[in-house]
Amino acid sequence: MAETPAAITETLLMGPGPSCIHPDVYKAIAQYTVGHLDPRFIAIMDRTKERLQKVIGTTNKLTIPISGTGSSGMETCLVNLLEKDEKILILINGVFGMRMKDLATRLGAQVDTLEFAWGTPVKPDQVKQKLSENHYDMVAIVHAETSTGVCNPVEEVGKLVADSGALYFVDTVTSLGGMRVTMDEWKIDALFSGTQKCLSCPPGLAPLSFSPKALEKMQNRSTPIPSWYFDLTLITKYWEGAKRVYHHTAPVNMIYALDAALGVILDEGLEKVYARHAKTHEFLVQGLSSLGLPMLVEEPYRLPMLNAVKVPEGVDEAEVRSRLLKEFDIEIGAGLGPLAGKIWRIGLMGHTACEASVERLTKALQKILNK
Amino acid sequence: MAETPAAITETLLMGPGPSCIHPDVYKAIAQYTVGHLDPRFIAIMDRTKERLQKVIGTTNKLTIPISGTGSSGMETCLVNLLEKDEKILILINGVFGMRMKDLATRLGAQVDTLEFAWGTPVKPDQVKQKLSENHYDMVAIVHAETSTGVCNPVEEVGKLVADSGALYFVDTVTSLGGMRVTMDEWKIDALFSGTQKCLSCPPGLAPLSFSPKALEKMQNRSTPIPSWYFDLTLITKYWEGAKRVYHHTAPVNMIYALDAALGVILDEGLEKVYARHAKTHEFLVQGLSSLGLPMLVEEPYRLPMLNAVKVPEGVDEAEVRSRLLKEFDIEIGAGLGPLAGKIWRIGLMGHTACEASVERLTKALQKILNK
Repeated sequence: MAETPAAITETLLMGPGPSCIHPDVYKAIAQYTVGHLDPRFIAIMDRTKERLQKVIGTTNKLTIPISGTGSSGMETCLVNLLEKDEKILILINGVFGMRMKDLATRLGAQVDTLEFAWGTPVKPDQVKQKLSENHYDMVAIVHAETSTGVCNPVEEVGKLVADSGALYFVDTVTSLGGMRVTMDEWKIDALFSGTQKCLSCPPGLAPLSFSPKALEKMQNRSTPIPSWYFDLTLITKYWEGAKRVYHHTAPVNMIYALDAALGVILDEGLEKVYARHAKTHEFLVQGLSSLGLPMLVEEPYRLPMLNAVKVPEGVDEAEVRSRLLKEFDIEIGAGLGPLAGKIWRIGLMGHTACEASVERLTKALQKILNK
Repeated sequence: MAETPAAITETLLMGPGPSCIHPDVYKAIAQYTVGHLDPRFIAIMDRTKERLQKVIGTTNKLTIPISGTGSSGMETCLVNLLEKDEKILILINGVFGMRMKDLATRLGAQVDTLEFAWGTPVKPDQVKQKLSENHYDMVAIVHAETSTGVCNPVEEVGKLVADSGALYFVDTVTSLGGMRVTMDEWKIDALFSGTQKCLSCPPGLAPLSFSPKALEKMQNRSTPIPSWYFDLTLITKYWEGAKRVYHHTAPVNMIYALDAALGVILDEGLEKVYARHAKTHEFLVQGLSSLGLPMLVEEPYRLPMLNAVKVPEGVDEAEVRSRLLKEFDIEIGAGLGPLAGKIWRIGLMGHTACEASVERLTKALQKILNK
């Protein structure tokens, strides 16, 4: 028998996601469920698409949430746009670049990679060199590497990829809603994200957008799309047009929540939201510094919303996380892969990103570490 | 610009799903989000698995909800268990059998089918004949064909399949929680469902269970699993064992909701729940009969929770549905495929299945049809 679960209390979510959620979003998710073809729900779908376009910085018509968590967005992009035996270059400096490689390999693509040390960014010079030597159908990069706290130069790489003719595929799971993402300006062809990071919505959906160039590729494939659930040629018939055609039953209440979460962001204003993330990040770095806790990533490449902090010598990192949760109702994240045991990952995402969160965390850390 | 969506009011959901939702489930879905590795959440995951086992009638260890809507469960079963060039027999008598065929074809399987007229059940004699003539790696059937309201003889076919050595794959999206489903007794190897039918939870998750025989097949595949998001060899590392390994960020609030919805069913008791569905179905058939509305399916093959009703000659079926929704806050469903325009689909699923729902619907239909 499973243990009776302990009561769920409000927790300060400062891990790699989920993040804290605005009361309006909790209210939205518990609205009455209606049918997935109900005109009132279709109006909410339409508004969600418009709001997503604004946050993503795009006019792409195909801009929708996929009915799965963030990683389902990665899979949707690749199953629709990358065919067997096509050539993809994946720029890897953390777990999520590795995940792209895993998935592209399963799809039977010819996978080439450029790898950079975890904790350092992708280097555009090396990308330029690689693109001059080879032809690729697609180039893939992670904007905000959640496993290391590194920001990759998506805009700069985008110019190189556009010159090469390849499709440009970007993971914005952790960056979207917390720092500037301008899909059209940056010449991105396929982008996906997750709801539980800077959008401050519960996990469960993957916002996605395709450029006209990506759409054209999808419509001119030479092989069938290998997935039914993620087939965007079918899904768009449900999300677009005057007459909606049933594909799968949309996750109605999750879409209520995403719509509300996007509304909260747009009400504050994107520029203000980005500035709040940046300012809170600086406040956190100062606070950690005063506790003698150094950052993993060099200053120019740090993400505002995901802060990788080195665990001091002799400290049991899991014990610290466990005490933070049990004694202080604060969650922070562990390291992944080669960084397991070596770093903590402190999230400042969406509704979590405010000075009060940082103060509560640094005070708790001070007590636990006896500083 | 999208229209500002109209307010969402409580709607009597009598379509093919989603169904009406218990207040406890709305309360659960809006509980505070916590981390996907939080011990309190892991205890809820464990309880959800146990509750699912009870409702599915199985002791299978691998019994979990997949992080997508019902159809993602179909895709998860097939990508894990059916390899390229393997032979599958699909028993088709409606939309959801067709969907299995579509998906198995995309996976490169050798697909054989037995088709039966929509509105009539699968005939075990023909299945027996087919199994005696061919070897199959898998046989697939839909328990409750949501597109027609037909109940297929899953138990009877299960005996034939077990004798043949093939894996037995069953879609219980619409049946689970509304009529008897006993996976182990019926010798089912892979089963999936959806949350928004008789489980009376919002759409967004796909309960799934694999028998030891299915597990063995998955572990002894000769080709890699073509999907990353639905790869159960990875997903189970997050759902099982003392140390949980991150795969994707679980849809935390949806799992709160499913856990609560299963709790509501088990509190009432499975036998009572089934009896309530059966009784309400009979009450509906009587009510429709008194309005001169005949059923599509012959009496012995009717599902209790999905009632296909013939649209009378000369009646604009879409107009009736639209008036029911706008004037009476009642949703019923349209026909699909060859049955579009010819039938209505009236759901009596989960929390919707009570006499008061039937009375409200029949009164409204009486007014609209001027009976």
